[in-house]
Amino acid sequence: MSRPRIGIVGAGQLGRMLALAGYPLGIDCHVLDRTADAPGAQVARATLGELDDPKALAKLAAEVDVVTLEIENVAVTALESLSGRIEVFPPPSAVAAAQDRLMEKTLFRSLDIPTAEFVTIDSADDAPAAASLGWPVVLKTRRMGYDGRGQRVVHSTAALVAAWREQGCVPSIAEAWIKFDREVSLVAVQGAGTERVFYPLVENVHREGILATTVAPHLSAALQQQAEQWLTAIMTRLRYRGVLTVEFFEAGGGLIANEMAPRVHNSGHWTIEGAETSQFENHLRAVLGWPLGDPRPRGHAAMLNLLGSLPPRQTVLALPGVHWHDYGKAPRPGRKVGHCTIVDTDRPRLLKRLESLQAVVITGK
Amino acid sequence: MSRPRIGIVGAGQLGRMLALAGYPLGIDCHVLDRTADAPGAQVARATLGELDDPKALAKLAAEVDVVTLEIENVAVTALESLSGRIEVFPPPSAVAAAQDRLMEKTLFRSLDIPTAEFVTIDSADDAPAAASLGWPVVLKTRRMGYDGRGQRVVHSTAALVAAWREQGCVPSIAEAWIKFDREVSLVAVQGAGTERVFYPLVENVHREGILATTVAPHLSAALQQQAEQWLTAIMTRLRYRGVLTVEFFEAGGGLIANEMAPRVHNSGHWTIEGAETSQFENHLRAVLGWPLGDPRPRGHAAMLNLLGSLPPRQTVLALPGVHWHDYGKAPRPGRKVGHCTIVDTDRPRLLKRLESLQAVVITGK
Repeated sequence: MSRPRIGIVGAGQLGRMLALAGYPLGIDCHVLDRTADAPGAQVARATLGELDDPKALAKLAAEVDVVTLEIENVAVTALESLSGRIEVFPPPSAVAAAQDRLMEKTLFRSLDIPTAEFVTIDSADDAPAAASLGWPVVLKTRRMGYDGRGQRVVHSTAALVAAWREQGCVPSIAEAWIKFDREVSLVAVQGAGTERVFYPLVENVHREGILATTVAPHLSAALQQQAEQWLTAIMTRLRYRGVLTVEFFEAGGGLIANEMAPRVHNSGHWTIEGAETSQFENHLRAVLGWPLGDPRPRGHAAMLNLLGSLPPRQTVLALPGVHWHDYGKAPRPGRKVGHCTIVDTDRPRLLKRLESLQAVVITGK
Repeated sequence: MSRPRIGIVGAGQLGRMLALAGYPLGIDCHVLDRTADAPGAQVARATLGELDDPKALAKLAAEVDVVTLEIENVAVTALESLSGRIEVFPPPSAVAAAQDRLMEKTLFRSLDIPTAEFVTIDSADDAPAAASLGWPVVLKTRRMGYDGRGQRVVHSTAALVAAWREQGCVPSIAEAWIKFDREVSLVAVQGAGTERVFYPLVENVHREGILATTVAPHLSAALQQQAEQWLTAIMTRLRYRGVLTVEFFEAGGGLIANEMAPRVHNSGHWTIEGAETSQFENHLRAVLGWPLGDPRPRGHAAMLNLLGSLPPRQTVLALPGVHWHDYGKAPRPGRKVGHCTIVDTDRPRLLKRLESLQAVVITGK
């Protein structure tokens, strides 16, 4: 039996966790990134180069059987340059749709998936039209936005113009402000053919700027079903293969699509310990056209990001049942350097344990 | 926070799974083995050399903060040569006790742990004394025995002498034949100080020569408690640190110690998916003196060894909830090349699922 080789464009923590999921499956992952100390390059073979450089991509492709990616902000033309030589999953056209907010929202609309009203802001002249959305509006750059970067909340046309200039006068959209009850996301996996699986909706909460994700089986089955239908429609339209994540606002009892990521996602990290099969393993299985693994949760789970620098490791590990994930990164303010996961059969107890963990992470002791 | 580095003597599948458990914890494992394609050397930095060579061990020690091992059949003098330069866990004296059946049984006896009656066979002249054990007896070489190697069941003094000669006239013991109800084992973890945790007793069953291990919470709490007391006594006596495994025969409602392994163990592989913290993570935590992780099982679990060559991967992965572990080895008759694990909340259903898996593994389709 030959040993399958998957090339991963990008070697951040997502590439690292993909590579680690590959080893037990007998899959050799080979990552592409700029530096040898990138998190993924520490645990897998690496090709060094720019993610946007067709030559670097060709070098990666020469080492592997199929190519995937862990970051959507790569040049689609570079990915397309591999066309005919090697398969790329998800397809570059899907990456293109996900890396541009205008294309993304246009896609949502064409599939009747609710999304916030918006106007395009390509020049200062476009700003007055934003008033029709009601104030405030959220100015978002069309590209390169993630984790809230490239976003500004503004309360007037003048402020909108100023913010647009401050963000570099790049093509943007102004979005109606959604008063939401909470943020949730759905991680889906599209296999070869029609096989697909869905993880349960999770709730994403920020406390002191730190993301905590909890599996939310208490959310209604109707919302889960609705979200699954929408992701199925998106994956079908995009001829998708692999993990796709869509973030939603929950407002007034319904879901409003916010954005999508054509990759494994921070809000799916809990699946490593919390689900029967992790999002990382399932992404690899999908990319190779293998049967998908059972996405069922093993109970209630909570995931907490570790930002800037790692909290005292032994204090955290002394908390019963806390799983530690170190991304192998140097500390830097605000940088995602790791995460922790807790799984419990009882949700109130889980939330209490999460609180103890948050206390250590926030106070650093 | 500095990145801890653990040196592992041996880079078979156990070293591989230890190294993979290290990455999320931010631990760099560095393995020592003869070849660069050893299972562990495929996933971690490696020093190439003989496991018994003090120079190779010194080279390994120079790269790491602490040394451990994944195989007990190494020269204790080589391990002892590291003394004073770097800590070795478990201590070489414990390895010595575990690699020699006579020392092992003497240890069991000195701690009042029941074990089969035996006589030493150092020459043909010792054979007649074995008759006092009643026939048959099991001839076992004192050293280098594992997975049933170096063992012969014989029914007479003449056969005993012949078998001893066939096995190379090496120092051996002849053991009384135990009519047992089943084989079980206990995996314990001794941390720094007095912290220790125990996994539940597991039952080890061979079917067509293939080991299947199932977590056996149906075994009596009294047996669990008894076994934990004995392992505590052994670990205390040996000033132990790390994972220790003892295999028992269950006979007439009680336990009889068969042998011990000073390392992570095949009968603990189920803990990767089936327990809150795996034996591999807990061994690393123990070696570093970190708090130990929760050993609680996540339900019922079954582990099946894959021998010789891997079964058809996609057929196995299509079975819901089957976890696949490929050791990265070339096929060879009888060689352990991987294992599969299943976890279920219901034991009868688990055994049914195990049967479906065994059918694929045995028939190869």
